[in-house]
Amino acid sequence: MGLVVQKYGGSSVADAEGIKRVARRIVDAKKAGHEVVVVVSAMGDTTDELIELAEQVSPLPAGREFDMLLTAGERISMALLAMAIKSLGHEAQSFTGSQAGVITDSVHNKARIIDVTPGRIRTALDEGNIAIVAGFQGVSQSSKDITTLGRGGSDTTAVALAAALKAEVCEIYTDVDGVFTADPRVVKKARKIDWIAYEDMLELASSGSKVLLDRCVEYARRYNIPIHVRSSFSGLPGTIVSNDNPHQPEGGEMEQAIISGVAHDTSEAKVTVVGVPDKPGEAARIFRAIADAEVNIDMVVQNVSAASTGLTDISFTLPKTEGQKAIDALDRVREGIGYESLRYDDAIGKISLVGAGMRSNPGVTATFFEALSEAGVNIELISTSEIRISVVTRADDVNAAVQAVHSAFGLDSETDEAVVYGGTGR
Amino acid sequence: MGLVVQKYGGSSVADAEGIKRVARRIVDAKKAGHEVVVVVSAMGDTTDELIELAEQVSPLPAGREFDMLLTAGERISMALLAMAIKSLGHEAQSFTGSQAGVITDSVHNKARIIDVTPGRIRTALDEGNIAIVAGFQGVSQSSKDITTLGRGGSDTTAVALAAALKAEVCEIYTDVDGVFTADPRVVKKARKIDWIAYEDMLELASSGSKVLLDRCVEYARRYNIPIHVRSSFSGLPGTIVSNDNPHQPEGGEMEQAIISGVAHDTSEAKVTVVGVPDKPGEAARIFRAIADAEVNIDMVVQNVSAASTGLTDISFTLPKTEGQKAIDALDRVREGIGYESLRYDDAIGKISLVGAGMRSNPGVTATFFEALSEAGVNIELISTSEIRISVVTRADDVNAAVQAVHSAFGLDSETDEAVVYGGTGR
Repeated sequence: MGLVVQKYGGSSVADAEGIKRVARRIVDAKKAGHEVVVVVSAMGDTTDELIELAEQVSPLPAGREFDMLLTAGERISMALLAMAIKSLGHEAQSFTGSQAGVITDSVHNKARIIDVTPGRIRTALDEGNIAIVAGFQGVSQSSKDITTLGRGGSDTTAVALAAALKAEVCEIYTDVDGVFTADPRVVKKARKIDWIAYEDMLELASSGSKVLLDRCVEYARRYNIPIHVRSSFSGLPGTIVSNDNPHQPEGGEMEQAIISGVAHDTSEAKVTVVGVPDKPGEAARIFRAIADAEVNIDMVVQNVSAASTGLTDISFTLPKTEGQKAIDALDRVREGIGYESLRYDDAIGKISLVGAGMRSNPGVTATFFEALSEAGVNIELISTSEIRISVVTRADDVNAAVQAVHSAFGLDSETDEAVVYGGTGR
Repeated sequence: MGLVVQKYGGSSVADAEGIKRVARRIVDAKKAGHEVVVVVSAMGDTTDELIELAEQVSPLPAGREFDMLLTAGERISMALLAMAIKSLGHEAQSFTGSQAGVITDSVHNKARIIDVTPGRIRTALDEGNIAIVAGFQGVSQSSKDITTLGRGGSDTTAVALAAALKAEVCEIYTDVDGVFTADPRVVKKARKIDWIAYEDMLELASSGSKVLLDRCVEYARRYNIPIHVRSSFSGLPGTIVSNDNPHQPEGGEMEQAIISGVAHDTSEAKVTVVGVPDKPGEAARIFRAIADAEVNIDMVVQNVSAASTGLTDISFTLPKTEGQKAIDALDRVREGIGYESLRYDDAIGKISLVGAGMRSNPGVTATFFEALSEAGVNIELISTSEIRISVVTRADDVNAAVQAVHSAFGLDSETDEAVVYGGTGR
């Protein structure tokens, strides 16, 4: 039995009952003979409450102090979890990110891990302890100040520790039973995926699947750490994210397209720059202005220029939260570029089909568009990669589109699977 | 202008408004030209809430994890305070006890400071920062684990930092205007004391005055750090605790008794061991049993033995919270000692008069007892030291006793001073 890293999110440790339930699960892994390292997030809404306090005392909380503040959250949950384990008769010690050797750059609020030196964790394990580590936090290599890792930080902590400690698996416990072929709240017949490759998981994550963030999957892929996404409530096996499919023998359907799932995302908006002179360098000036405003964009489409006017339209999608920044940035360069107008549309949705071997199987694309057409869904933008096709539609059409595509690719389960979100105690 | 250490308790930083008010006060000190180090407690009831959480997950929370948990409280308040100061346009950095160099022994939950190495604080000050330090916490020298200092820990942190940084004064901000000649909630005419010697403050603290704990006063006396106890609400000068009275010229009334104040305490109980054989070693066996149970006792009185029986009674006082432990310990040695019975009485109160030169002025003791007699207060136990007389009475008599003694020693102010407890905004 090897070393296992388990990560529990805030919803799994939202209250004393949750902490005790998680403690029993951890002890089970220890009893089964594993060395166990646990990464834990702050309890329930703690982080949001701390952010609200910060906003009350300061309009623009400073990075260093903001990180000092937020890291109090995991400190509370990890200490309580260690106590709960000890009260079950097992030895446990909690460690801050700094004590666990999570070394980061010094970019407060969204630091990146640059090294992991888990000497104290290794010692604690050697002495028979279960090690509890605060997720989401580290210590800056240069200033020795406390840092936080930003969104998805606790998952990344878990994968980084798993890599540094050569764990056999990194288990990410959450409030759903795993990764599904589509969001079960939208598609009743969505199936849990038993195994998915890192690349497909990355595409799902960047296409709207909320279960794992791309950052953590990228880290796991780089160090070849299998991730097991599973529910802290149900105890059922979840989804394995790895290089090698444990459920399928070698060989087999190597050349066949393997569809992993359908993701959707309604958090984006579409900006259209209307009447851009169709000459070299205009698009570059538009996207330089956007980049200088530090706005991340997703899909980009340029229409064919109308021969009569010599003008073209450029559309792109971006998170709604960045919309105002992008509009402001484009307004400032309007005269320089000489475009006609801007259109902002936040009533859009994106549907993505993800799977290996898609491009070499033209039938996949055809089936995808036929399904949308039969469901009466109009397509506004299209973008493709080696293992993904994404389209933008009206937000109102998203649910119908996801269901249609899910059925068309034979992803529907035989029966309606129980919807597994939330703390149902399953 | 020298270096000032300011300490703010939980009631001063109970919410965002409190934190902003404290931030303005700190900035005022900085603007006046001081180097400023601030020690801060956890916000309001945070510590109690964390303790309650711990009790929910574990019947007997372990020391190491309990300390890890509790230290989250100051982490939150110190980060918020630093943010609030920065939003006023001044530079501030927060530091944990460990970062501030507060080195302790490894007795979790009630660690003692063994060294202070404030290198990072000194650097932060040299760079023009206001340094915010978490009170109540340190790091164990041997295990590098986080420790907490127990009751009165934040005051002790402040005094220890003041000593290590050679501060000119340690200001303890609280919700009262200073140390009073008696509890203003009991004695309307109580006066604020402008200056009091360390020794007298120690006696007041151990006799029931809640404003400062003896531990912090003891530390200040050892390193000769003046303490200024004052209100974070009113801004008025408070009470100076030091060796040298700044308000009184040298010489003067050197041989006269100088009464500092009247303290009272209703948190104790009285245990009487009835019918103890009056022979050498019996008292020792009683108090060895008490000590082995780790019960701290306060006053001890042994009655004169009745010649006819050869039996005597021994009474002592102790915190009510320790009562059951003491009774259990004495029950276990009953046969060995052969006493007749135990009496436990928790309806008692203690009144203490504190002041220099008391023993060499017999009139003081006489006036004290006359005042109690005229107020119709019956005395049950008496104990005296060089600078203190304490008596035990019925709990119901305490208020009348305190007022009578306060008047008899001319401590009453000319007018009713405003009662200054609580956040009145004065």
